[in-house]
Amino acid sequence: MAQTTPNHTQTVSGWAAHDSSGKITPYIFKRRENGANDVTIKILYCGICHTDIHYLKNDWGISMYPVVPGHEIIGLITEVGRNVKGFKLGEKVGVGCLAASCLECEFCKDSQENYCDKAQFTYNGIFWDGSVTYGGYSKMLVADYRYMVHVPENLPMDAAAPLLCAGITVFCPLKDNNLLNSPPKKIGIVGLGGLGHVAVKFCKAFGHHVTVISTSPSKENEARDRLGADSFIVSTNAQHMKAGRRSLDFILDTVAAKHSLGPILELLKVNGTLVLVGAPDKPLDLPSFPLIFGKRTVKGSIIGGIRETQEMMELCGKHNITCDVEVVKPEYINEALDRLARNDVRYRFVIDIAGESSSKL
Amino acid sequence: MAQTTPNHTQTVSGWAAHDSSGKITPYIFKRRENGANDVTIKILYCGICHTDIHYLKNDWGISMYPVVPGHEIIGLITEVGRNVKGFKLGEKVGVGCLAASCLECEFCKDSQENYCDKAQFTYNGIFWDGSVTYGGYSKMLVADYRYMVHVPENLPMDAAAPLLCAGITVFCPLKDNNLLNSPPKKIGIVGLGGLGHVAVKFCKAFGHHVTVISTSPSKENEARDRLGADSFIVSTNAQHMKAGRRSLDFILDTVAAKHSLGPILELLKVNGTLVLVGAPDKPLDLPSFPLIFGKRTVKGSIIGGIRETQEMMELCGKHNITCDVEVVKPEYINEALDRLARNDVRYRFVIDIAGESSSKL
Repeated sequence: MAQTTPNHTQTVSGWAAHDSSGKITPYIFKRRENGANDVTIKILYCGICHTDIHYLKNDWGISMYPVVPGHEIIGLITEVGRNVKGFKLGEKVGVGCLAASCLECEFCKDSQENYCDKAQFTYNGIFWDGSVTYGGYSKMLVADYRYMVHVPENLPMDAAAPLLCAGITVFCPLKDNNLLNSPPKKIGIVGLGGLGHVAVKFCKAFGHHVTVISTSPSKENEARDRLGADSFIVSTNAQHMKAGRRSLDFILDTVAAKHSLGPILELLKVNGTLVLVGAPDKPLDLPSFPLIFGKRTVKGSIIGGIRETQEMMELCGKHNITCDVEVVKPEYINEALDRLARNDVRYRFVIDIAGESSSKL
Repeated sequence: MAQTTPNHTQTVSGWAAHDSSGKITPYIFKRRENGANDVTIKILYCGICHTDIHYLKNDWGISMYPVVPGHEIIGLITEVGRNVKGFKLGEKVGVGCLAASCLECEFCKDSQENYCDKAQFTYNGIFWDGSVTYGGYSKMLVADYRYMVHVPENLPMDAAAPLLCAGITVFCPLKDNNLLNSPPKKIGIVGLGGLGHVAVKFCKAFGHHVTVISTSPSKENEARDRLGADSFIVSTNAQHMKAGRRSLDFILDTVAAKHSLGPILELLKVNGTLVLVGAPDKPLDLPSFPLIFGKRTVKGSIIGGIRETQEMMELCGKHNITCDVEVVKPEYINEALDRLARNDVRYRFVIDIAGESSSKL
């Protein structure tokens, strides 16, 4: 059940699904007035994340319809609340997955709001006023400034939008595992999609040797020539997998479908670490032998805190890192979702919300 | 196929299984002469490890019959090779799971021989002379001194024997995760068997708060009163599990049967670590949500290196830590194995190889 409260007075047009068919249609709804800690944004671009499909189709059984998806949001500030610090009218800003958190726990105090037990998401969350949150598939957003980041001037806004989820999701494990300024390591990226392709860019910018591990031999040329990967392993090729045994220091597994971690773990050196950032809805298979015989580590990580997101944005500005995107008009959202479900996109759809690009229908 | 080489001239009596029935019978075989780097031991006690059952029954498809199991060996030195350093006639020594390793790789050089790619086990391994190794269910052992440890004088030899596998298996994850001298942490021990009970003893000796997590409510009194556990969670009790959510810093999972890591991971705080030391023969279920939403870690660990094993022995001497054992005569091995398979032992069977205890038939 969508809930609204009396402070919801602003009419907004957006796009929503109303049931588990996941079909998106135009939707007019209300947003809250711009509060003391709020910033209002005219949304220009919003990325389409694989998570959107899960919520649209109620794959996790937690969707609250109507669902207005979208948590890779970039726009321009049109209003600033009286308590807001550090943001000004007209500025280019980004909003990712987080809409609220308790601001009091050890995680919030350390800007790891993403691990706050009371964190609420940008859509399909419950805001502190009791309203269900609606995301970035819409013309305007009212957001608490404490969950907002500055976007470097040199980055194109459409290609920067997916950094707010896909980017931070792969950036944090690299930061947490001391891979931003380390001597070169041998890193494997499993899956070359929205998350994987930007992970390759980060790893190359940070000086590492990158091996893409994919089920699709057809992606090899692009991985090497366009993204700069140093090596490519076809995960279904037993010879490749055997040759790669005990060769990698670190693996980032971005695959969102159920799979076994066993063969991938064998690619790690002893003491190596695999970080899982995909969220398959069925449990992964974890065979004990490659884990214990190699003293290996499997970690989880989900998006990032706001301080980390800002740090990532600045590094993206410095290294000129953005996502490879296909910009589409709102009328194309359903087709884009269908194509994304078939992995038919290189590598991220971004909706031209304000109609400012000469983008695909 | 058992292989012997011309240097195998010493006749030994022991106990072996000859096929996957796993049935143990007396067995006379040959061991190598005592070489330059070798020490000969009169075996006094040998623990019965759950791994022995897997090899006896060929559960992993890698058994080389006849299998003479046993890798929790304590005895007295009866002969010392000319290159041996640090061991002398008559001394009390222990031999665990390792018989050989390359001695040249980074792991061997760092005394992490257990992660050497060429490491060979005390039984069902291939020694450098091509012979199949036979373990401690026998009257005498010839072992390379580089895989042998000193046993503190104050420890009873029968109760110390299982430290060579069960003990080191749970000690290493505590050491690796800086839990030997840390401020008190909240630690969970999953499974209260041969490994779990000694893990509780270590954790209490190192000053931690210990929660035993078990499927058996009947073990609570013993866990608390005899082993000193501070808390007890019945893992099949939803209320217990909910109350324990996000409460533990570290979990040691000693369960050797297939299980899901999901409910157990929920007991960890954000950033918490679970180390798996059991080796279920089927893959564990690893749901992604508790892993990624809690930024949690699952690590593997297998036994330990020789330097760590010696360090553990000395700490056991200092804290007077041994295993709770039921000492049995060799004639009782088959019954002991049957009972072990039913978890009907508190907590480890040890074979009185030399007939020196007034032990159970």
